[in-house]
Amino acid sequence: MRNLTLLTDLYQLMMMNGYFKSGRNETVGVFDLFFRPVQQFNYAVAAGLAQAVEYIESLKFTKADIEYLKSLNVLDENFIQYLQGFSFTGDVYSVEEGEIVFPGEPILTVRAPLCEAQFLETALLNIINHQTLIASKASRIAVAADKAKVIEFGARRAQGPDAGIYGARAAIIGGCQGTSNVLSGKMFDIDVKGTQSHSFIMTYNSELEAFRKFAECYPDNCLLLVDTYDTLKSGVPNALKVFAELREKGRRPIGIRIDSGDLAYLSKKAREMLDEAGFTDAIIFASNDIDENLIEQLKLQGAKIDLYGVGTKLITGAGVSSLGGVYKLSAVEEANGSVRNVMKISDSLFKANNPGFKNLFRIYDKESRMAFADLITLRGEEIPKPLTLTHPVERYKTSVLADYEIRPMLKQIFKAGKRVYKIPPLLESAAFAKAEKARFWEEYKRTAQPHIYKVNLSDGLYALKQKLLNSRTY
Amino acid sequence: MRNLTLLTDLYQLMMMNGYFKSGRNETVGVFDLFFRPVQQFNYAVAAGLAQAVEYIESLKFTKADIEYLKSLNVLDENFIQYLQGFSFTGDVYSVEEGEIVFPGEPILTVRAPLCEAQFLETALLNIINHQTLIASKASRIAVAADKAKVIEFGARRAQGPDAGIYGARAAIIGGCQGTSNVLSGKMFDIDVKGTQSHSFIMTYNSELEAFRKFAECYPDNCLLLVDTYDTLKSGVPNALKVFAELREKGRRPIGIRIDSGDLAYLSKKAREMLDEAGFTDAIIFASNDIDENLIEQLKLQGAKIDLYGVGTKLITGAGVSSLGGVYKLSAVEEANGSVRNVMKISDSLFKANNPGFKNLFRIYDKESRMAFADLITLRGEEIPKPLTLTHPVERYKTSVLADYEIRPMLKQIFKAGKRVYKIPPLLESAAFAKAEKARFWEEYKRTAQPHIYKVNLSDGLYALKQKLLNSRTY
Repeated sequence: MRNLTLLTDLYQLMMMNGYFKSGRNETVGVFDLFFRPVQQFNYAVAAGLAQAVEYIESLKFTKADIEYLKSLNVLDENFIQYLQGFSFTGDVYSVEEGEIVFPGEPILTVRAPLCEAQFLETALLNIINHQTLIASKASRIAVAADKAKVIEFGARRAQGPDAGIYGARAAIIGGCQGTSNVLSGKMFDIDVKGTQSHSFIMTYNSELEAFRKFAECYPDNCLLLVDTYDTLKSGVPNALKVFAELREKGRRPIGIRIDSGDLAYLSKKAREMLDEAGFTDAIIFASNDIDENLIEQLKLQGAKIDLYGVGTKLITGAGVSSLGGVYKLSAVEEANGSVRNVMKISDSLFKANNPGFKNLFRIYDKESRMAFADLITLRGEEIPKPLTLTHPVERYKTSVLADYEIRPMLKQIFKAGKRVYKIPPLLESAAFAKAEKARFWEEYKRTAQPHIYKVNLSDGLYALKQKLLNSRTY
Repeated sequence: MRNLTLLTDLYQLMMMNGYFKSGRNETVGVFDLFFRPVQQFNYAVAAGLAQAVEYIESLKFTKADIEYLKSLNVLDENFIQYLQGFSFTGDVYSVEEGEIVFPGEPILTVRAPLCEAQFLETALLNIINHQTLIASKASRIAVAADKAKVIEFGARRAQGPDAGIYGARAAIIGGCQGTSNVLSGKMFDIDVKGTQSHSFIMTYNSELEAFRKFAECYPDNCLLLVDTYDTLKSGVPNALKVFAELREKGRRPIGIRIDSGDLAYLSKKAREMLDEAGFTDAIIFASNDIDENLIEQLKLQGAKIDLYGVGTKLITGAGVSSLGGVYKLSAVEEANGSVRNVMKISDSLFKANNPGFKNLFRIYDKESRMAFADLITLRGEEIPKPLTLTHPVERYKTSVLADYEIRPMLKQIFKAGKRVYKIPPLLESAAFAKAEKARFWEEYKRTAQPHIYKVNLSDGLYALKQKLLNSRTY
């Protein structure tokens, strides 16, 4: 991995310099990474932990980095000296990649000396905000596509190389079945897929000639782009000619791709034409500004699409260009053992974070085995049976669960600077996301006005929050 | 630079394999990179050429790449062999970074053997789409901020490391004055800026103590974040105490930062408080979901903001998450010398690209020296004086320019695979963008319903386009 140590905001280094100068090296900070509510994403699919771990493990200020920091004339000489030996010595807890997560949940917690915990903020947010956004978008698209497959096609529209490379990886976690991105395929062992572009067709004197050349090259991988000139009058008829030629040679064509025009109308007509010619198992692959909303609309109109190629709107998150994840201090542990739980409440109570060193659980209904609610607790707090869950905002609403299944969602990733967690293979994370998503009623996964899944605070955490609210001092 | 050779869509390699297999190694393709119209961006600021050049110059299929491609079992052995010696041998023409560009203009043209020209598509679009998006967004924000400065603050919300790193660079081209991103600062020699975060304040027992500690560390760089608890009742009064202490020591505080609450109201009140205490030159730095529209609104209400920190909405493009640049074949030159100019017209005439090997000029009014219109021509076409410009869509509208100033916008970047262009220093590109932007009437730069700048086709290009439209064959 590239050395991304300096991928940080200058203020992190300036604050660290401050901590260092005040001799607060032994003070420990607890920081939580969580998302604020985002209108279009009622649930998110966590992704990015693998790269976050790589980042933490490869932290190292090179000589050139040190020279550069000196040249800024902002940081103290002693502090820069300290950075030369800088590495992470703290603890990290995180949900696994593929976990279904909700706003306000501590999906990653860092407990480490203030300097170190502070330093990680920028890169952790950058990596996890991005990949979780893309995995979440992919998940929504995969839910809409249902039995149709979805392939990630967005490299050219991604916000820079990393956005394409790691976006493709996150898309797989979220539910895509492959990518067009060869580098991602190589790096993460993802299935890569390809067809041809309009330019390929146009370099030949005729569409039919282009199709024949392609079929010659890829007799067993023949998916033809039929919309360069006129989908139904030229593209599909020419494809059928070439498919018939392949059939005569005992080969089985894959199908056609439509990349423009009305995908509902064209796919239905093309399906009829393919079926009439006896190519009932040839697939129809559609692309062009696809997202979950368009897929739902196309399905409602009976579009015959087997495979979606999704580019821009998946790889950039389209309407939601950032999940708005934040990294907030929740506790300060002084060297003398005193602990101060903290929360930032200035702008609105709604945005106040949850104080303290916390844990996160998912509660499943015992009978249906479906997710019932998530529960944020203080670390070490016991979870009683029967359990009374109180609505996070409308406190008069309570549910009592006599019995339940419970799953701790946070795994320890680093312990005193050592990694104690093995990143699972990518497809395992994708399978985890899929299985876990199946344990949520579909009402939570609707794209329009979904039912809101409850994230509850334990009695202990609720009481702590109230206490801090009532004892504000500054 | 990292080796990003495999940052491509599989279909590029599959098409190249097809060209290669058909013995079309000598056939040359001309491809144009251009943007489709984007509602919110009536003009764009070109960026990304530096990284595009690096990409082209470092193209190399490593042994591991070759092994990976073999493992896909899609491409022919001979073709994979050919890739081992692959490098770019063609010509590239491009506008310079910082150029003001408009939809439909060929801002980069590749003329190279089909295989090579085809191969570049994905990475060129990835790099230039991204950086031009961010430079354009930064330019809009800088126009709105006018005399106030703008600092890029978005690393944590960028779509992955590259989006943060190269986004910061593009933001400078677009008009930002600095970044918080230390790695970008180091890589591109950009001014880096920092203050402190809420967490820094919260690690101390009181806001006043935190401010004092910060002022101790940074007596000459003291910008205090005043909204952690209560901006006007706590933050500003505490900042004033610390500023007074600095003043007694002969130091001059920088100012305050407000990151939440109503920025118009709070900045006006804070300005009064700073002025009353004699800190008339202390600045007010505002952040929190800033973009060009909010800045305009704040200014209308008399907000007293000297410096904007702009994060998410700049570094992701917010509402416009992708510029939608495309790379289209416009001519095919066969080995025997025959040239076929091509255009794709299937889905709508509106989206039809401009055929042929082209050039791009900006025409300035001789008297005002302001930009009058851009002109796309065929290469080699003469531009007459007087010049008749015809409206690109409403053909009955014409303007005759008896005299004009004209500037060719495309520079040759590669000639037969050799780079013949030197990337200017970043600040030179930023200055170019600023100077060129000043040559556009402000009516073109309005954020709401701006006047549309005219991009005209030369007579030769218009005639060619009509001829191809009238002679469609497939």
